[in-house]
Amino acid sequence: MSQVMPPPVRTPREPRNGVNTPVLMATIDAVKENPPLAQFRFRASSRWVDGTYSQSRVESFSGAGGEHQHKSQFTFAADHPEVLVGQDRGVTPIEFLLHGLAACITAGIGNIAAARGITLSSVESHVEGDIDLRGILGIASDVRNGYQNIRITFDIAGDATPEKLRAIVEQSRARSAVVDVLTNGVPVELSINAHTR
Amino acid sequence: MSQVMPPPVRTPREPRNGVNTPVLMATIDAVKENPPLAQFRFRASSRWVDGTYSQSRVESFSGAGGEHQHKSQFTFAADHPEVLVGQDRGVTPIEFLLHGLAACITAGIGNIAAARGITLSSVESHVEGDIDLRGILGIASDVRNGYQNIRITFDIAGDATPEKLRAIVEQSRARSAVVDVLTNGVPVELSINAHTR
Repeated sequence: MSQVMPPPVRTPREPRNGVNTPVLMATIDAVKENPPLAQFRFRASSRWVDGTYSQSRVESFSGAGGEHQHKSQFTFAADHPEVLVGQDRGVTPIEFLLHGLAACITAGIGNIAAARGITLSSVESHVEGDIDLRGILGIASDVRNGYQNIRITFDIAGDATPEKLRAIVEQSRARSAVVDVLTNGVPVELSINAHTR
Repeated sequence: MSQVMPPPVRTPREPRNGVNTPVLMATIDAVKENPPLAQFRFRASSRWVDGTYSQSRVESFSGAGGEHQHKSQFTFAADHPEVLVGQDRGVTPIEFLLHGLAACITAGIGNIAAARGITLSSVESHVEGDIDLRGILGIASDVRNGYQNIRITFDIAGDATPEKLRAIVEQSRARSAVVDVLTNGVPVELSINAHTR
């Protein structure tokens, strides 16, 4: 079979798809050599404004052995829509999970394609989640609060066979931080400081 | 004990905390009468730009028996930070989960306090998640891809005892769609359309 499927050859990859592939590979090698560099802590701060409306700031994180500031101060609003008695001054909190999911798999696709020497021409995705609000409204105790299922569809185009493009998306899913959290869950620890005013 | 703890009396609640409490209660009653109104589907569309950078749009959703458009067209970017070989043109996908978590519990706090006749003066939260990037970098197969744990701290102030304020936060956590998804997970179904170009 060797004439049909030669063993894979590891060639140094040039930058591609907007990914600085040599730096990405060097970063992975540096973390292999020094595993504590892989420990990251991400953060957000949120402030209630009124009703179901709040604003979050995402500014800093730690990782790679140090503390980092995002280049911009990123702020995000969230609200409930009018049909749920909010004022729709932001998308709902649960919609941000859909954005995070699509963005995480998409970022991985860019990196993995570059690492495999494949040039992408377009990647689009559509994601949707079904939820029965009787859970959060306290109407039915046998209905879960969150999404019952999420579906995401990717349309990917590039200079490789459909099988290779498909394999990039599958690999990105297999290595996605958001996919892992959404499908497997994570412990969430809550602390409360309460003050009468 | 009845002189010490009178049975709870259900009084009609006026609007409070920016929540139209009577409309909220009427909405819950309407869904009780007609459970299919509770079926919602939220959506996002995402487009890869380059590298690890993508943009999502959140525009429409279905629920309460109909199709709805958000009042604004909401768009969100996501990217990896420079230390992870991105260009930091947006926060990372996994940071959006932290914003969604804080916003979801916060929205519930506004509603629950209004329903309980408690006026809030401030609600702030800080959330952080720990992640070992050896998972997504493919360096260590025994390290998960996503957060290993998430911690969220609420500071709440209002015109009730600390115990009652604390109970509002606990009840919001217990009824949070995002808390449910993050702690219990949800099936994520992936479809791929691939085109050689």
